[in-house]
Amino acid sequence: MTSHFDNIAVVGVGLIGGSIALAVRQRALAKRVIGVSRTPGALRAFAGTREFPNGLVDHVTDSIEEASARAQLILLCTPPKTIVKLARDAAAAAESGTIITDVASTKRRLISELEASLGNACHFVGAHPLAGSHHSGPAAAREDLFEGCRVIVTPTDETDRSAVEKVSQFWAAMGAEVLKMSAFEHDQRLAGASHLPHIIAAALAAATPADALPLTAGGWRDTTRVAAGDADLWADILVDNQQPVLQAMGKFADTLGEFRAALEDGDRQKLLQYLKEGKERRDALGS
Amino acid sequence: MTSHFDNIAVVGVGLIGGSIALAVRQRALAKRVIGVSRTPGALRAFAGTREFPNGLVDHVTDSIEEASARAQLILLCTPPKTIVKLARDAAAAAESGTIITDVASTKRRLISELEASLGNACHFVGAHPLAGSHHSGPAAAREDLFEGCRVIVTPTDETDRSAVEKVSQFWAAMGAEVLKMSAFEHDQRLAGASHLPHIIAAALAAATPADALPLTAGGWRDTTRVAAGDADLWADILVDNQQPVLQAMGKFADTLGEFRAALEDGDRQKLLQYLKEGKERRDALGS
Repeated sequence: MTSHFDNIAVVGVGLIGGSIALAVRQRALAKRVIGVSRTPGALRAFAGTREFPNGLVDHVTDSIEEASARAQLILLCTPPKTIVKLARDAAAAAESGTIITDVASTKRRLISELEASLGNACHFVGAHPLAGSHHSGPAAAREDLFEGCRVIVTPTDETDRSAVEKVSQFWAAMGAEVLKMSAFEHDQRLAGASHLPHIIAAALAAATPADALPLTAGGWRDTTRVAAGDADLWADILVDNQQPVLQAMGKFADTLGEFRAALEDGDRQKLLQYLKEGKERRDALGS
Repeated sequence: MTSHFDNIAVVGVGLIGGSIALAVRQRALAKRVIGVSRTPGALRAFAGTREFPNGLVDHVTDSIEEASARAQLILLCTPPKTIVKLARDAAAAAESGTIITDVASTKRRLISELEASLGNACHFVGAHPLAGSHHSGPAAAREDLFEGCRVIVTPTDETDRSAVEKVSQFWAAMGAEVLKMSAFEHDQRLAGASHLPHIIAAALAAATPADALPLTAGGWRDTTRVAAGDADLWADILVDNQQPVLQAMGKFADTLGEFRAALEDGDRQKLLQYLKEGKERRDALGS
């Protein structure tokens, strides 16, 4: 059922990459996990600490070429804007047939840039695990981060089918539920599911008057939590998915405008109806 | 240091009233807690269950008059729109000097209606514990709900000073931090701290396209969580605090409009600056 590999390379060992490494080792999905980090010294700190007594990875290097030459599966877990270059670097060093995949939050531009030009007969398969946190970095890694989470795999008509299946099986073996859709559909749907909530949370945090901050409680904290995420990463995601995010923002502004009009009119019945619609959608998704 | 009472009446034994009752009994702040419920049968189910082996209250009745005649402190923990009538009913049955307080999320209208007209030489002191949850009902009660939370007490120039101190000491003895401010200031500040986040969460949940819902993850769930709250209660709160909420919505719309303009222009630097401002505000409040 599950894919097994001699060597898996994890490029970028932060929250996502570190959690992948931990989960792969716990589930014995590879004989060896090679971590690639620009600062392997920092990563070595996680090779046998109280939090991670067995370390995050089996071997650490700052050379993507070294790791790629040995790996049958290469996971790029770095910020979206770095993926295209790293995929090409990895493909140039890897053996023919090596599978390269990623975890980036936007897919359309990336897939279109990589699809035709990866070279060296490596296979690129776009993927996006819908897991994450406002925490980041290897210290936040958790071996159960992907259990029960959804992972979207975005093949095109050109993508090698066997590589798509191996990537899908890899994530299924991590305990995730795999969905396949086009990169276009992914980006459209994630604009509403993830990118819009982030921009709203950040705008709400920024718009809250200073004298209101000491009176915030659980409601404000929940509603703004994701605004604590990495601002650089999110600026890239939003710019990368500009049009779908703008569309989602427009729809949200229309909805909020309806709430506002009902409140301006003092129309409690209409406001109640809107609040109930929001509650029904929210309740359907669980706590 | 702490206030002690023979009998405390808790009118409305839901999440807040039930948690007050549990905390009062755990801390021995009264000899007896009398719960007042329109459905005392339902409440009796919590008098000795697995969750609450000692029950939520010592005695339960459906008569606010019976409870008020015996209590030295009466806590009204029912929806905001019921408070004025219940305060008058309680005062009519209570002994002279009895303190009546509440936990409602809006204060200005309520205080202005009660301040001059309570009668029977009872003292009304407005209060609002900044605790709560998207859960509700007595089953969600927790004896530690108010530990470390802020409670706003809203005296006017007319309010009996001794009563204000007793209510403040009561909440301090529950482990809360007490802040005093005018009802006007309370409602202004809570519009940004609590009411705006609620309406945004509800509008976001309502605006999320159906095909995006299966792809939502922790970000969407956090950002929309409070939308699961009681829609009827929130319609009352928003209508009650109409003008401050509309002002807060206007400020938020301006801020979101700036985010939108930066994204439309593809101005990554400006967008990053806005995201960082949101992140700084969010980071300052903790997770």
